[in-house]
Amino acid sequence: MQIQVINPNTSASMTAKIGRAAQAIARPGTTILASNPEAGPVSIESHYDEAVAAVGVIEEMRKGVEAGCAAHVIACFGDPGLLAAREMARGPVLGIAEAGFHLASLLATRFAVVTTLTRTRIIAEHLLQRYGFAELCTSVRCIDLPVLALEAADDSLIELIAAEGRRARDEEGAGAIVLGCGGMADLREALSEAIGIPVIEGVSAAVKLAESLVDLGLGTSKHGDLAYPIAKPFSGRFAHLGR
Amino acid sequence: MQIQVINPNTSASMTAKIGRAAQAIARPGTTILASNPEAGPVSIESHYDEAVAAVGVIEEMRKGVEAGCAAHVIACFGDPGLLAAREMARGPVLGIAEAGFHLASLLATRFAVVTTLTRTRIIAEHLLQRYGFAELCTSVRCIDLPVLALEAADDSLIELIAAEGRRARDEEGAGAIVLGCGGMADLREALSEAIGIPVIEGVSAAVKLAESLVDLGLGTSKHGDLAYPIAKPFSGRFAHLGR
Amino acid sequence: MQIQVINPNTSASMTAKIGRAAQAIARPGTTILASNPEAGPVSIESHYDEAVAAVGVIEEMRKGVEAGCAAHVIACFGDPGLLAAREMARGPVLGIAEAGFHLASLLATRFAVVTTLTRTRIIAEHLLQRYGFAELCTSVRCIDLPVLALEAADDSLIELIAAEGRRARDEEGAGAIVLGCGGMADLREALSEAIGIPVIEGVSAAVKLAESLVDLGLGTSKHGDLAYPIAKPFSGRFAHLGR
Amino acid sequence: MQIQVINPNTSASMTAKIGRAAQAIARPGTTILASNPEAGPVSIESHYDEAVAAVGVIEEMRKGVEAGCAAHVIACFGDPGLLAAREMARGPVLGIAEAGFHLASLLATRFAVVTTLTRTRIIAEHLLQRYGFAELCTSVRCIDLPVLALEAADDSLIELIAAEGRRARDEEGAGAIVLGCGGMADLREALSEAIGIPVIEGVSAAVKLAESLVDLGLGTSKHGDLAYPIAKPFSGRFAHLGR
Amino acid sequence: MQIQVINPNTSASMTAKIGRAAQAIARPGTTILASNPEAGPVSIESHYDEAVAAVGVIEEMRKGVEAGCAAHVIACFGDPGLLAAREMARGPVLGIAEAGFHLASLLATRFAVVTTLTRTRIIAEHLLQRYGFAELCTSVRCIDLPVLALEAADDSLIELIAAEGRRARDEEGAGAIVLGCGGMADLREALSEAIGIPVIEGVSAAVKLAESLVDLGLGTSKHGDLAYPIAKPFSGRFAHLGR
Amino acid sequence: MQIQVINPNTSASMTAKIGRAAQAIARPGTTILASNPEAGPVSIESHYDEAVAAVGVIEEMRKGVEAGCAAHVIACFGDPGLLAAREMARGPVLGIAEAGFHLASLLATRFAVVTTLTRTRIIAEHLLQRYGFAELCTSVRCIDLPVLALEAADDSLIELIAAEGRRARDEEGAGAIVLGCGGMADLREALSEAIGIPVIEGVSAAVKLAESLVDLGLGTSKHGDLAYPIAKPFSGRFAHLGR
Repeated sequence: MQIQVINPNTSASMTAKIGRAAQAIARPGTTILASNPEAGPVSIESHYDEAVAAVGVIEEMRKGVEAGCAAHVIACFGDPGLLAAREMARGPVLGIAEAGFHLASLLATRFAVVTTLTRTRIIAEHLLQRYGFAELCTSVRCIDLPVLALEAADDSLIELIAAEGRRARDEEGAGAIVLGCGGMADLREALSEAIGIPVIEGVSAAVKLAESLVDLGLGTSKHGDLAYPIAKPFSGRFAHLGR
Repeated sequence: MQIQVINPNTSASMTAKIGRAAQAIARPGTTILASNPEAGPVSIESHYDEAVAAVGVIEEMRKGVEAGCAAHVIACFGDPGLLAAREMARGPVLGIAEAGFHLASLLATRFAVVTTLTRTRIIAEHLLQRYGFAELCTSVRCIDLPVLALEAADDSLIELIAAEGRRARDEEGAGAIVLGCGGMADLREALSEAIGIPVIEGVSAAVKLAESLVDLGLGTSKHGDLAYPIAKPFSGRFAHLGR
Repeated sequence: MQIQVINPNTSASMTAKIGRAAQAIARPGTTILASNPEAGPVSIESHYDEAVAAVGVIEEMRKGVEAGCAAHVIACFGDPGLLAAREMARGPVLGIAEAGFHLASLLATRFAVVTTLTRTRIIAEHLLQRYGFAELCTSVRCIDLPVLALEAADDSLIELIAAEGRRARDEEGAGAIVLGCGGMADLREALSEAIGIPVIEGVSAAVKLAESLVDLGLGTSKHGDLAYPIAKPFSGRFAHLGR
Repeated sequence: MQIQVINPNTSASMTAKIGRAAQAIARPGTTILASNPEAGPVSIESHYDEAVAAVGVIEEMRKGVEAGCAAHVIACFGDPGLLAAREMARGPVLGIAEAGFHLASLLATRFAVVTTLTRTRIIAEHLLQRYGFAELCTSVRCIDLPVLALEAADDSLIELIAAEGRRARDEEGAGAIVLGCGGMADLREALSEAIGIPVIEGVSAAVKLAESLVDLGLGTSKHGDLAYPIAKPFSGRFAHLGR
Repeated sequence: MQIQVINPNTSASMTAKIGRAAQAIARPGTTILASNPEAGPVSIESHYDEAVAAVGVIEEMRKGVEAGCAAHVIACFGDPGLLAAREMARGPVLGIAEAGFHLASLLATRFAVVTTLTRTRIIAEHLLQRYGFAELCTSVRCIDLPVLALEAADDSLIELIAAEGRRARDEEGAGAIVLGCGGMADLREALSEAIGIPVIEGVSAAVKLAESLVDLGLGTSKHGDLAYPIAKPFSGRFAHLGR
Repeated sequence: MQIQVINPNTSASMTAKIGRAAQAIARPGTTILASNPEAGPVSIESHYDEAVAAVGVIEEMRKGVEAGCAAHVIACFGDPGLLAAREMARGPVLGIAEAGFHLASLLATRFAVVTTLTRTRIIAEHLLQRYGFAELCTSVRCIDLPVLALEAADDSLIELIAAEGRRARDEEGAGAIVLGCGGMADLREALSEAIGIPVIEGVSAAVKLAESLVDLGLGTSKHGDLAYPIAKPFSGRFAHLGR
């Protein structure tokens, strides 16, 4: 089973980290194909970055579908391009925010999210509302470090995240913590230990959900609004995206 | 990995069917321990049945925890006793309604449920609200056959369920169907084919989610409201349930 | 008119206290039948305790229905077994959480709940959501004393509860307080005075609602999902619960 | 105990009917003071009618408070002036829509409303949302007769209302029916029989709730937003309404 | 184009201030007709005040409709009598709370409200819920000065309001501030500067929305529940309000 | 005042039509700059089309900001790229779905949407939820014609749309209709007449809202999550989008 893991930003080191985390959690028979778009932002920290990155996701999805991947993971916490990607594939497509929220809600009656910049909190809040988890999330907490600062993961970074997680646990009654950035893919174990309650990291969560869905023979509904996009011309630089 | 699958009613044939379905979807290394309570209703079709069955679930959970099961599945669509069971275990505990809803929402923007008796619709509706999926579910449809009638699965039964599924698909825009009874555990493939959109069956969905959570090292939060129950005496016939 | 008041836990002293409080508020012609299950937890402070207690509620309900009680009250703030109990009776069945929320919402635009242990807050929150009062409740506050500690009601206990009530009043704008435990049935007047805004205690609230419904000739709907449970065998220790 | 029942419209015959229905359900010791404003619309079938009627409610409230009434009922299904009336009184103030919704939700998991004109449906829908009952109400159904047509209650009227109630019961799964007009105060019993599920009529419901609250020593919260209105001059024709 | 701006209270100085603010923002071709009722409260700070003021709004609306005004603005933050006023007119009718919320939601993902007295917060909260903006509003903050204290607008008043606005910006992430009182109509520019994020003032917002709707040829729907009120007699002092 | 109107698809004829409609409704002093991206889909009928179109919106926004446009309109009913566009500008940015919903809710208590393909209904439903209008919209109805079929507007097209609008009016009680496609920009008047209730067309609605906001000196909040995107490198084909 091949599972495509798309890092929607263009930072190769983050892609490598995400790929390693995904492969580490995958089953022996699963191969992870980690990639990132050729073009786009080096990190995703705004609606603007996200909108451009979504086209990169689409481009990578095309490759993944052609390569016969059984499932696809979008490894950025805003789940950019998720519904577009679902339209492109018969296999399941998972966003890491979505995957994290789902698993957290199976382990605790209330969970919190710890993410990077305050300005991206709204992205998580919109997803919580869209997916139905708004009532289950006590808060989206921010460490106010940029995404790429996560590349230098050291003890102080871990402590920064852990401190927010413990506050959510102690002050808000959160029973689990969802890590709110693909760049935290390598911090799952350290943070579980540091916070002392279940810590759900989206990349690993999404890989396991993908394997599960494939095992179940389940893929994206091709009926209705997630059917393949209607064939039509695309112009200019995006002509190759027409069908 | 041992996964306990508890059929909350006392119908051994249904337990066997559920156990077979669970084992069939489990990974090679996973052993399914299917059981049902010694005491309780032969089927669960009311709040009353469900309340009594929840104690059976607790009794079975005790055995499963003692047996060292890595995870636990409650295989009745009302998820009876789910939060109580979670308090008892460090491993993950999944209800099949919950599992079905979660996976369906990953495959389609809207899903429908097809269950047995109209009078149990409210149970599914309450769970949809509790879990956050009320907006994503187009309707809970009923075939108005009792649970045990599912034991005689034949073509007319499949057609009855499929007809409701197709109505949800065509009239309500449902992109996926969740099967609303543990007794439908053996109908997953036939109904997928008959309805033509993803059909999610809760027992198999829960087993895969359980494997995933165990792989991720994730279990029920033991912080806050899902911590082990406070030790206290239980009297009379339930004295053994005290701690 | 006989009204059955069921204390779902097995602490006879609490049952007596609840019974006294119920009788004190009942009309001259109303007789209160207070009882508790023979078997089950001595107090209810978890989903686990609640699930076992619900069977006790069912057993007591059977007796109450046979005794011809006109209405039934479930005197534990989690309203355990409420819908099951409603299926068993033609008369009205009231939970004390439910009764408290309803009356509070008639007296103030926002109310708060003061309950015992933090770990049971989720139970009240789930009920608020289910019954439709989530938006009207400013918070569920906890004194973090176990239920049975309420048996030794003294001034310091009253002050502890009152302090939370006053905080809800002053910091959150709550116009009324709902007492969140059957064990507070004797504190209604002292707390009204100490907090200075309407204090609604569930046992007394439920008794008055029960009397009202009986006067109105209104009982539980026997149409649809609250109809009598479908007749079926129950096995083993619960065989007597079959119909 | 004196309970004031205010018919917010100026039709004396409807006031008399409402008064009779209220007195009939009241306890022996309760005296009903039924009245209607001296000025205002003869029936209330629009937001416009309702806004004018609310001032009439205020005028009647003043009299009722001066007369020492223990509680107050606003007997029009839009609950006009309810929060203003609450500010004026220390005793409880009940609207009949509110009273009907509350009691219905204690008897069935879902209820429907049957009211008069389609154009007033929005008034009931707004109240359902405000009070928290929107999810519990299957629909607000209309017979499309004006309010005053209810004065000539005959079999065909009863059948018209009953037909809507039965449709709600059979097509929507409503377990109880709330009558959506003060002018239906005398139809409670006939409709209960004709529809075959609990029928809640607001005037009688409100009277019993009022008695209950008075018995409990509970009144409107005088803390915060329902405190007595701030003293200030009113000019012109409304000068007497200043304090 | 004539736009009627109704100050629902009877303070002529506030009416003049609101009228000036409205005219200042109106287009060259727009004439503002500012007025207030002849009778009613000098300020609106309770449900009681609001209920009486609504009749004044109705009286002024009649004049405005007769005068051929193209649109109508109700310049009190509780939007008193809004739906009644809509029934009376073919042109658009705007409340200033409504207008403020709408424009704020176009400029920021989250906004806060700063209003006068804490006791009127509930009025804003009810409107936010009714109009659909509850999730978008971080809080309704109060300066706890009476409405008429705004007449003496000086630097300390501006600083008081600005301080609340900055707290909403910094502590709650509000991206815009809605001014919660018609009496703040002259503070728009000073507060924009003092708070440093968009400040939406309702009177000016409503005037521009009114002009826009008139330009678009759009008016109040005369179909269904906002159709002209049904013709009927009104009695007594309100006889002239019958049709 | 220059207002940029971006047609997110690449069909020049539709851009021209939208531009004409925008100019026709604009005030004398307003100049409309209508454009469409150089690259992207010829029409937008899926999440996929929308994701690609959003980058086109960004490219056009850059030009519009550089050209000093005072406000920006995104003229596709899915409001693609709306939040990204807001981050890019100090002036207001309006989506046409958003604009349509807002104005409709000022004219009727309930409105319906009539759009093109059933598969795009989900896009409107997601926006209704996001913006807070879900409860106010009775349904999103579809004529099941592709977007470009609107280019040949003739009587049968108008009748097709009008028929859905009338159904919403008569069967669902919708008091206003929002046209659900930028390609309907020229049908506003014909449909108003054909349906007989207010018909809100998003392009014209957005232009008037834009003018209003500019008049009020209001623009997009540059505090928090709509601040200018954080400066960072973009790689490859999108390098020019970095800052």
